[in-house]
Amino acid sequence: MTRETTLDSRQEILRTAARLFQQRGYDATSMNDVAAALNLSKGGLYHHFESKDQILFDLMDGAMDITQRRVVDEVRKIADPEQALRTLIRLHIDVVLSVRDREVTVMLHENHPLPPALRRRVNKRKKEYVHFLENLIAQVQRGRNSRSAVSPRAAAFALLGMINWIYQWYKPDGVLTGEDISREYTTIFFAGAFG
Amino acid sequence: MTRETTLDSRQEILRTAARLFQQRGYDATSMNDVAAALNLSKGGLYHHFESKDQILFDLMDGAMDITQRRVVDEVRKIADPEQALRTLIRLHIDVVLSVRDREVTVMLHENHPLPPALRRRVNKRKKEYVHFLENLIAQVQRGRNSRSAVSPRAAAFALLGMINWIYQWYKPDGVLTGEDISREYTTIFFAGAFG
Repeated sequence: MTRETTLDSRQEILRTAARLFQQRGYDATSMNDVAAALNLSKGGLYHHFESKDQILFDLMDGAMDITQRRVVDEVRKIADPEQALRTLIRLHIDVVLSVRDREVTVMLHENHPLPPALRRRVNKRKKEYVHFLENLIAQVQRGRNSRSAVSPRAAAFALLGMINWIYQWYKPDGVLTGEDISREYTTIFFAGAFG
Repeated sequence: MTRETTLDSRQEILRTAARLFQQRGYDATSMNDVAAALNLSKGGLYHHFESKDQILFDLMDGAMDITQRRVVDEVRKIADPEQALRTLIRLHIDVVLSVRDREVTVMLHENHPLPPALRRRVNKRKKEYVHFLENLIAQVQRGRNSRSAVSPRAAAFALLGMINWIYQWYKPDGVLTGEDISREYTTIFFAGAFG
């Protein structure tokens, strides 16, 4: 079996929990609910996860793993900064639109209270991604001798907002396909909406 | 008293509920919790709101009222489409950054289950705002004889993503001020991050 089709029980628990959290709300979903949905005993569930917080943290951490593997690792292989940035936009949008990953990645953006130590670990990884993107944008600006008044920091947040917001409005049967979004968002980010 | 400083009890209930929803989670906050935080009897609370769903709907509907009053109504007064669009960006960012409104407006984006009839009413208002913005962008494109490959629809969602995402990362004591964000986001949207 390929890595993509292998699901160990830990991952199965995470996906089921993510689905329940979205259907019923995080707070309203108990460890009992998660165990019942999986036909697991409560002891069986606690064998894998010591608490609901731990499940939420693992979901968020797993979403960052997906971003690392499917976006950052691929982009790092590309030497030309502009080509790397265009690829990042396309691959990050692919992750957001992936049906398979959506139930996991959407958890990153919901405002659920996590214990401070776990929250800090998730935020650290989010910040690393922002800095990676910010650095790439700065390289493109230098390569173009751009006199842009836009700071790499603001540009990074603007781009992440455009892309991460897609899950709020995207419909698979809507007029805008994933390819449309990739192409048009790249144009907007590089040349504006009226370029 | 000015309109801004007048708070009737209904609004006080809504603000308190919004704060509790964010601190404890929507699902974990009961009508009893809301009543207790306000020193109200449960009957007193139910006199104003028949259910927690109704409170959530009123919060979301109120956030759309704020957008209507502070953004759309102001932008409609401006005849020139480009000037109107620049004003919309600035005013919408002002609303997102407003400390006073944040606890209400943030509710719009959280993924809480609302009964379908109420959900449809909120979505209808969100869609009206998207269409208003989309139409404004189309007017600017026509006015500039823009041959842009960017559709007004994709551009509207990109801009809303940039702006609505700000609440995820903005810190009042961070390096980017509200004015920086307004200016740089306007530049990105009109001319790209490297213009």
